[in-house]
Amino acid sequence: MPHIFEQLFAIITSKQSDDPAQSYTAQLFAQGLPKIAQKLGEEATETIIAAVQGDPAQLKQESADLLYHLFVLWAASGITPEEVADVLKQRLGTGGLVEKAARDHKISPAQ
Amino acid sequence: MPHIFEQLFAIITSKQSDDPAQSYTAQLFAQGLPKIAQKLGEEATETIIAAVQGDPAQLKQESADLLYHLFVLWAASGITPEEVADVLKQRLGTGGLVEKAARDHKISPAQ
Amino acid sequence: MPHIFEQLFAIITSKQSDDPAQSYTAQLFAQGLPKIAQKLGEEATETIIAAVQGDPAQLKQESADLLYHLFVLWAASGITPEEVADVLKQRLGTGGLVEKAARDHKISPAQ
Amino acid sequence: MPHIFEQLFAIITSKQSDDPAQSYTAQLFAQGLPKIAQKLGEEATETIIAAVQGDPAQLKQESADLLYHLFVLWAASGITPEEVADVLKQRLGTGGLVEKAARDHKISPAQ
Repeated sequence: MPHIFEQLFAIITSKQSDDPAQSYTAQLFAQGLPKIAQKLGEEATETIIAAVQGDPAQLKQESADLLYHLFVLWAASGITPEEVADVLKQRLGTGGLVEKAARDHKISPAQ
Repeated sequence: MPHIFEQLFAIITSKQSDDPAQSYTAQLFAQGLPKIAQKLGEEATETIIAAVQGDPAQLKQESADLLYHLFVLWAASGITPEEVADVLKQRLGTGGLVEKAARDHKISPAQ
Repeated sequence: MPHIFEQLFAIITSKQSDDPAQSYTAQLFAQGLPKIAQKLGEEATETIIAAVQGDPAQLKQESADLLYHLFVLWAASGITPEEVADVLKQRLGTGGLVEKAARDHKISPAQ
Repeated sequence: MPHIFEQLFAIITSKQSDDPAQSYTAQLFAQGLPKIAQKLGEEATETIIAAVQGDPAQLKQESADLLYHLFVLWAASGITPEEVADVLKQRLGTGGLVEKAARDHKISPAQ
């Protein structure tokens, strides 16, 4: 059985040509990339606020919203969760660790 | 084998008590929740810009950074990917669809 | 005559105890600081997108929204435009220039 | 004497063709619009966090950073504080109030 994230992404993708009047997801796709990116910004802000307020219950809800809109952004941009997972895997390296290299996305395998 | 997302989260969690001088992840934990939330905001902004610029390669990199910092934020806040997945599953409902209900996180199972 | 920014701030402040049903500004104050901060995040995102899209007309509108919500945030937090102006003046120094010193807000007077 | 905001904007504009090695402002202009927009997102996030944390001293510093980067974004986009002020004045109407009309930027003069 596919992971919930892939499952969610598959459902989102399947809604791309649905009637915007019937589906919030289809409505987002119809509004276009800038609008979807805007929603991502809103959900990121809500996630940040929930975290800083120390509200784990709210943080779960906002994180779910953030992931959902991130996946819609991926679908609208023609990229897949597998491709993003590949980036994460490359950074993980061999038995190493994903580490963000501030500006240049270098792999720091053992930190 | 666990999904890359759970794998990544497990590695992040394991770094919580590491030496901040040796690990970017440990450094983030040491800096505390507001700093981690700030990094999430930065990565969300970079994700938005990559998407609006129509740059899928950059979008993959920024999305990976966004997920990584989101996971660090979850770990620092004491929540798990499973708990966020549960929120997504609840919204999926029975054969339905995850739909964001704008302000109140209601489930809209068939849209 | 006061500058439009001070004028706007004075009007915003005067609305703090108005009926939320009659005034969007009063409604924001009633909703509280996290909600106002959330609106600031939304407007910042819209400003960023308008700029990256190269749409000056939209950028003006979004910038006005951003300033308006920033001023509401100041009022709700008990700070004034004069106090923020003082910070800017201190950084300007003597005949110098406001320069952001990345993490520590140092003054770099001649750059 | 011009208002500090106009004064700041004038200084920023005058730095547009300076040596990026000597000036943080010139460096921002050289990096281009997406990078400037990214900095705006970072400062907006820091402003939001300072406000939610209830830290007025930090909020003043972050707000100054936010305004500075917003002005750089305006200069790089070819718009002026006067043009943004004009938008605010139009919304103020006659003896009325600036009110944000959620999605469509309508004027709500008496709220």
